[in-house]
Amino acid sequence: MSRLNDSNRVEAFSDGVFAIAITLLILEVKVPEGGGIGHQLLSHWSSYAAYVVTFLIIGIMWANHHTVFGYVARVDRVLVFLNLLLLMVCSALPWAAGLVANYLDGAASGEAAVALAVYSGFMVAHSLTFGALWWWLTRTGHLFDTRVDVEAARQTRLRFAVGSVIYPILVGLSFVSAPLTLAVHGVVAVYYGFNQLPVPLHEGVDPDEPLVA
Amino acid sequence: MSRLNDSNRVEAFSDGVFAIAITLLILEVKVPEGGGIGHQLLSHWSSYAAYVVTFLIIGIMWANHHTVFGYVARVDRVLVFLNLLLLMVCSALPWAAGLVANYLDGAASGEAAVALAVYSGFMVAHSLTFGALWWWLTRTGHLFDTRVDVEAARQTRLRFAVGSVIYPILVGLSFVSAPLTLAVHGVVAVYYGFNQLPVPLHEGVDPDEPLVA
Amino acid sequence: MSRLNDSNRVEAFSDGVFAIAITLLILEVKVPEGGGIGHQLLSHWSSYAAYVVTFLIIGIMWANHHTVFGYVARVDRVLVFLNLLLLMVCSALPWAAGLVANYLDGAASGEAAVALAVYSGFMVAHSLTFGALWWWLTRTGHLFDTRVDVEAARQTRLRFAVGSVIYPILVGLSFVSAPLTLAVHGVVAVYYGFNQLPVPLHEGVDPDEPLVA
Amino acid sequence: MSRLNDSNRVEAFSDGVFAIAITLLILEVKVPEGGGIGHQLLSHWSSYAAYVVTFLIIGIMWANHHTVFGYVARVDRVLVFLNLLLLMVCSALPWAAGLVANYLDGAASGEAAVALAVYSGFMVAHSLTFGALWWWLTRTGHLFDTRVDVEAARQTRLRFAVGSVIYPILVGLSFVSAPLTLAVHGVVAVYYGFNQLPVPLHEGVDPDEPLVA
Repeated sequence: MSRLNDSNRVEAFSDGVFAIAITLLILEVKVPEGGGIGHQLLSHWSSYAAYVVTFLIIGIMWANHHTVFGYVARVDRVLVFLNLLLLMVCSALPWAAGLVANYLDGAASGEAAVALAVYSGFMVAHSLTFGALWWWLTRTGHLFDTRVDVEAARQTRLRFAVGSVIYPILVGLSFVSAPLTLAVHGVVAVYYGFNQLPVPLHEGVDPDEPLVA
Repeated sequence: MSRLNDSNRVEAFSDGVFAIAITLLILEVKVPEGGGIGHQLLSHWSSYAAYVVTFLIIGIMWANHHTVFGYVARVDRVLVFLNLLLLMVCSALPWAAGLVANYLDGAASGEAAVALAVYSGFMVAHSLTFGALWWWLTRTGHLFDTRVDVEAARQTRLRFAVGSVIYPILVGLSFVSAPLTLAVHGVVAVYYGFNQLPVPLHEGVDPDEPLVA
Repeated sequence: MSRLNDSNRVEAFSDGVFAIAITLLILEVKVPEGGGIGHQLLSHWSSYAAYVVTFLIIGIMWANHHTVFGYVARVDRVLVFLNLLLLMVCSALPWAAGLVANYLDGAASGEAAVALAVYSGFMVAHSLTFGALWWWLTRTGHLFDTRVDVEAARQTRLRFAVGSVIYPILVGLSFVSAPLTLAVHGVVAVYYGFNQLPVPLHEGVDPDEPLVA
Repeated sequence: MSRLNDSNRVEAFSDGVFAIAITLLILEVKVPEGGGIGHQLLSHWSSYAAYVVTFLIIGIMWANHHTVFGYVARVDRVLVFLNLLLLMVCSALPWAAGLVANYLDGAASGEAAVALAVYSGFMVAHSLTFGALWWWLTRTGHLFDTRVDVEAARQTRLRFAVGSVIYPILVGLSFVSAPLTLAVHGVVAVYYGFNQLPVPLHEGVDPDEPLVA
């Protein structure tokens, strides 16, 4: 009896996709088989690095998605569609992580650069879909609950875009150093995890107090 | 302490299956491995196309399933069974997407046609199971909540069937052009996402107001 | 802030495992690759049969699990543990379905028999774990909500065991005809879906009325 | 409209990851293929053992995680991050189980020892992340609900650490007997399932009574 314009169900579906994508990552880490377990374990280091960094990235994506939807009172068809595009990018990250795992090590350094550039491209795509979703939410604010200061929220768009400029830069950095690029992705994820853009609220609203439904 | 005839649990289970199926799609997109990353990335274009189109399709399936269940107050054994058949078709879509990925490109064009015909056949099967579910719901309306105008809902059956006629046509189109068929599937999914059949309500009922439980 | 002895969370976790296991089934259906798509599609018929039958089985397992937990008000450590064993068997069904897919066709008929016997053995294991769970619940009834007639529920144990005797028989039938055995599994699943053992309630309790919490 | 500092959503996300990881375990159990089904079934015994033990371990991890979060009223960024690290370790267990499956049998015994040492290392990592989460929760108790006796909870840290000392010991035991080490992991999981560290509550608080929200 829930309804589609009930944001809780869209959020639950999205949470499910995030949780599955983050857990599927491990399938891209090859399980050693055959002789020489020690050597084999060490030779898969790029898989482990791709796993750890991408796990953090999806985890932070989830947390930020969650924060935004915490102020969404209802959804419309456009929001559902934009959210679907966002999830489409996120769901593809196990593939992108697998690409990094396969080419970061052992391959020609030019191939590692391409792999990281593609990986960074997914983050560009994520920031674009997240930005589109944020743009739609702040355009008129008709989907937010009453706590949100829509005018102030609209003004965060530019800061949001500035914050996302790191990802195109990382596409470029891939051609300088692929391993460094992966490491920076991890650092950026943790940074955004602890320093995310707050949703601006009306004065006097305590963000820790739940909205009375 | 929830009960089987509680439609929320059937919906939650279905949402889970939709979310998992949509996320498993990425496992059918092969991760390039070995030399020539650039060439390999390009050569997998059919995987990417199958991923994007099928992701949209499952996403829209979920949204429409969700809308219908938004007016279902209770479930019976028949509805659970019909819903299970619907989920069985939906869960198989990663396989169908993998088939398209493997044959759309590179194979003889006759094989691409067969792959797309099978893929389109799954959409026929989906519209049949969704139609059966809708038929059961509208037959007596005993499972709907009180907002639904059962008489009007029953009359949507024909329009529902007419809307579904696109899928048998796409089975035929597969033999004309396989890539075009896949593209049309994507367009149709987005179209149904934004222009779905509304559930007819009694006059004066605001579809955005939750039913008082 | 939910608590472990809150049966809703155990149920939600179980629902998740059922939903994932049922959706993973498709990964055991091989996607045709290489020349001769028509021939290949036909040659995988045993995969499709294993998929359809096992999908129904897990779906009905979920429905019955759900019905029973609909009357469970609280859980204890033993119930959590027995439930974990039940889920362990259920989660392994994609493997059992893959075994049937690989041996039902093409292999020597003796091998198909072994595959179906193992598959049937999983159903024996499921009925044992489900029976143990039911036995624990009905032993003292301390975990049921107040609607359940514990004395009557305890007396269903024997009927429960009698109903489960079909599975050891199917282990034997595997050696007579493997395809027939798979078909009977499908029929039995649908039968139990529509004719499950009801949880006995006190006189005058309407099973469709939710318990006032 | 839920909020990130709402512990229920963090718990639901975590529950999802646990449920998916536990169900993905089966993908690491190879499905026999080709002639000699009987011999093949027997030769995969190490896969079955790794599946059963790791299933129990993740199940108990879930139960204990659940118990702790049952007393968490709100979350902060640090808790979300520590929880993400905990889930990262847990999500990797299908890989660790696959490693044990591949090397426990058939390989040189030195390789089985390394496989089990790595597997045990994951349990060390789990107890470290769980310990860090517990340490953060009990440090000031600001995230607990009012039932928890924070002073007493803080004093459980040492007992918690003592309980975890079993895992480094199992790293060592791997080099004595790999199969025995796996068996002990199973026994320890069941032991912790039935004898977990209770969260200390204020006097007179009934742990079975839900907190009035």
